[in-house]
Amino acid sequence: MTSLSTEDEVEARLRDIGARRYHRLHPFHHLLHGGRCTKGQVQAWALNRYYYQAMIPIKDANLIARCDDPALRRNWRSRLVDHDGEGEHDGGIARWLKLTDGLGLDRDYVVSLRGLLPATRFAVDAYVRFAREKTLLEAIASSLTELFSPEIISERLDGMLENYDFVSPDTLAYFVKRPPQAARDSDFALAYVKRHARTPQMQQAVFGALEFKCDVLWAMLDALHYAYVAPKHVPPDAFVPNE
Amino acid sequence: MTSLSTEDEVEARLRDIGARRYHRLHPFHHLLHGGRCTKGQVQAWALNRYYYQAMIPIKDANLIARCDDPALRRNWRSRLVDHDGEGEHDGGIARWLKLTDGLGLDRDYVVSLRGLLPATRFAVDAYVRFAREKTLLEAIASSLTELFSPEIISERLDGMLENYDFVSPDTLAYFVKRPPQAARDSDFALAYVKRHARTPQMQQAVFGALEFKCDVLWAMLDALHYAYVAPKHVPPDAFVPNE
Repeated sequence: MTSLSTEDEVEARLRDIGARRYHRLHPFHHLLHGGRCTKGQVQAWALNRYYYQAMIPIKDANLIARCDDPALRRNWRSRLVDHDGEGEHDGGIARWLKLTDGLGLDRDYVVSLRGLLPATRFAVDAYVRFAREKTLLEAIASSLTELFSPEIISERLDGMLENYDFVSPDTLAYFVKRPPQAARDSDFALAYVKRHARTPQMQQAVFGALEFKCDVLWAMLDALHYAYVAPKHVPPDAFVPNE
Repeated sequence: MTSLSTEDEVEARLRDIGARRYHRLHPFHHLLHGGRCTKGQVQAWALNRYYYQAMIPIKDANLIARCDDPALRRNWRSRLVDHDGEGEHDGGIARWLKLTDGLGLDRDYVVSLRGLLPATRFAVDAYVRFAREKTLLEAIASSLTELFSPEIISERLDGMLENYDFVSPDTLAYFVKRPPQAARDSDFALAYVKRHARTPQMQQAVFGALEFKCDVLWAMLDALHYAYVAPKHVPPDAFVPNE
């Protein structure tokens, strides 16, 4: 039998999961930031990651749709604002498309998802469905990878600006805006999870939810690495870089 | 605008999708049959593929649950019998576990799914949900990879018996039983799809369903190849072979 952990122990365990399983540890992450990716590999990454960005508001709306508490819905709504913005050229998805534009990818092609790796689609769709089908507590806990994202994003920003002449501060606007949003959101979600995981079973479910989400992000980088770095087996009909 | 294809053209297009995208073309398939896998790689393949086998009756029950026609339900029910058998030691899943037993994997470990690659889970779950959420026509069309399976299975049977001293005809019983079932099932599904795809849109949806299913099988082999062949990056907590 697992016993009940204190709130501090829950937080420590969550941070330990991040320390062991967050995709910052993935070899593709090191290549990307270390300037060892070709432009085509960066394009493939941005193209595939676009699908993740595009589905995040749908994941969050699924989560809001399951909240009885108006205060929780209001809080979570800020995530929709962050990603979808106040107008067509605002918000995280629009900023991600500035990145894919800046990398020379055709916007219609990116948005069409025609070049997506199937593994990206399966992993992202698994995340959206997790937020729809698991308990609300687990859905909220699965967002907790944001606890670890400010650091990875600043590594990414610095590493990419320093190493790639095909990116600029303007095309990387997404990464400037994102860390304070992520910090605010993950503080809220962490406090929620610590307060509401009131049984050993609920605490285990929370840990499982964060592990699941780490698996989603990790599997996305596995697929990119396999298709575009080594051994470079691009699945049928997926994006093939020019260079 | 796409125009309406004849039934023969629909069949030709489906067979062409198989010829280009079925996982028989995947490099892992060639390694497996050609005797170039280690025992640990064959174990990893059997362990991951177990999850696919285990979820097939759930996929099929989801499909049956959506059929208004008793005749169609009765026909599709034979797939449940094939996989779940008439008793504990009968059926495709039980025969798959004879394979994992024969490969020296602990049965409780296999069934627990603890060692599964996350990408396997995401791909297989995408298939189960496809059968639940898409149209009945698309759900049936997604089973059509069975059109191409008798050939791959006989290659697998011959190649594995010839090349690996750790397998025997007894542990490979699954592959002896399966081809006539697959041929019967795919004949039925192909006739159904040809008859019921009555608009260009429905025909396109049928082609898309088969492409989707090819992507599922392909992504499973991508993940195996990446984790266990090259560059051998096993994701956190997934199965690690002893040898």
